[in-house]
Amino acid sequence: MSEKKKTTIILFSGDYDKAMAAFIIANGAAAYDHEVTIFSTFWGLNAFRKDENVHVKKGFLEKMFAKMMPRGANKLGLSNMHFAGMGPKLIKNVIKKHNAMPLPDLVDMAKEQGVKLVACTMTMDLLGLQEEELIDGLEYAGVGAYLADAEEGNVNLFI
Amino acid sequence: MSEKKKTTIILFSGDYDKAMAAFIIANGAAAYDHEVTIFSTFWGLNAFRKDENVHVKKGFLEKMFAKMMPRGANKLGLSNMHFAGMGPKLIKNVIKKHNAMPLPDLVDMAKEQGVKLVACTMTMDLLGLQEEELIDGLEYAGVGAYLADAEEGNVNLFI
Amino acid sequence: MSEKKKTTIILFSGDYDKAMAAFIIANGAAAYDHEVTIFSTFWGLNAFRKDENVHVKKGFLEKMFAKMMPRGANKLGLSNMHFAGMGPKLIKNVIKKHNAMPLPDLVDMAKEQGVKLVACTMTMDLLGLQEEELIDGLEYAGVGAYLADAEEGNVNLFI
Repeated sequence: MSEKKKTTIILFSGDYDKAMAAFIIANGAAAYDHEVTIFSTFWGLNAFRKDENVHVKKGFLEKMFAKMMPRGANKLGLSNMHFAGMGPKLIKNVIKKHNAMPLPDLVDMAKEQGVKLVACTMTMDLLGLQEEELIDGLEYAGVGAYLADAEEGNVNLFI
Repeated sequence: MSEKKKTTIILFSGDYDKAMAAFIIANGAAAYDHEVTIFSTFWGLNAFRKDENVHVKKGFLEKMFAKMMPRGANKLGLSNMHFAGMGPKLIKNVIKKHNAMPLPDLVDMAKEQGVKLVACTMTMDLLGLQEEELIDGLEYAGVGAYLADAEEGNVNLFI
Repeated sequence: MSEKKKTTIILFSGDYDKAMAAFIIANGAAAYDHEVTIFSTFWGLNAFRKDENVHVKKGFLEKMFAKMMPRGANKLGLSNMHFAGMGPKLIKNVIKKHNAMPLPDLVDMAKEQGVKLVACTMTMDLLGLQEEELIDGLEYAGVGAYLADAEEGNVNLFI
């Protein structure tokens, strides 16, 4: 009757490198047989956007957000200002050279391993994001669902 | 004799959006009957500054800090560089439009729900912040008090 | 047979102030008799670089990284954009004035207290950092080792 260990990650950041860290930890934990949840909120939701333009009805503010925010895991920027000049392109080259996984592949791997990917419904409401604009296979929930997972969690992180 | 679950949050960041996330989680956890502590340190202390100018004696460096740091929850900036052009004003409009709570209201709600708000005394010393400059209802403590709470915590986050 | 409490910190950030926070918490936890691990990954590894230039063979991308990334704890920048103008120098003056510990001393103190300092081998591979370039007394491991520590942890933080 040994229960599974649990890992929960709040992905708040919309930075490519921080999202990579989140998914590397999540995939590692899943490989170690943890039950893993990534609760994606605020800018973190951008990692879950589809990379094509999806036509949905939006108000003016929501259109602005939709235009300004990066569309999908492959479009995120870097957290580290010192690299602003070179940006995510250099990181992607490095990843490729070392046969490491780029972010979109890490997301796919997480899905395959059964990591629960949750989109924060409050953020979706605030930023005007709709389910059609996000990748498949997500659950939709609020802070209450996150807490229900996290209060039983062994490893809880905010990224 | 079931003990209450515990949530502790270190609020290190002085960004409006990150402070919002911290208080939304704290208020959620309090609503789920957790004992909740927000330990505010470094730039996170700015969320607890009074919004008026309080006259206290300060040295030169402390005066500089006092002038340059945002005064209170309503004055914080955003973590997300892509929005630097529009800034917190857009977010506040969006919050208003969706009847969500702006940060100062989230802080008030946390107080009403009995969330323990702690100001880090080491930071106050470093930045030259005095109790008179901070909002009412805070406790004052150091990293030892934080650890005493966190080591019994179910959900511990660094934001 | 009471087991020791455990604190684990992922140091992802390469910011001076965030690294300070990480080491202050780690040293506090060690003083409270926790078993403490700092797992340093991505930009956080810069806090563990030696401050002199170490001659090792590198490819072009690795050389670029080596040049652009800050060399050691004393060279890190600040997380807070509002202080970009004054930068870490002001912070260091403030620390000195208040007899607080600058980051390199906090790292030394952590070592003396037996805090386990781990360098993420995946990051070393990606950024082309070699053991000779990092300070002494580190362990080298990957995300699996982190999870083994963290799943037994009382306080787990991502900084």
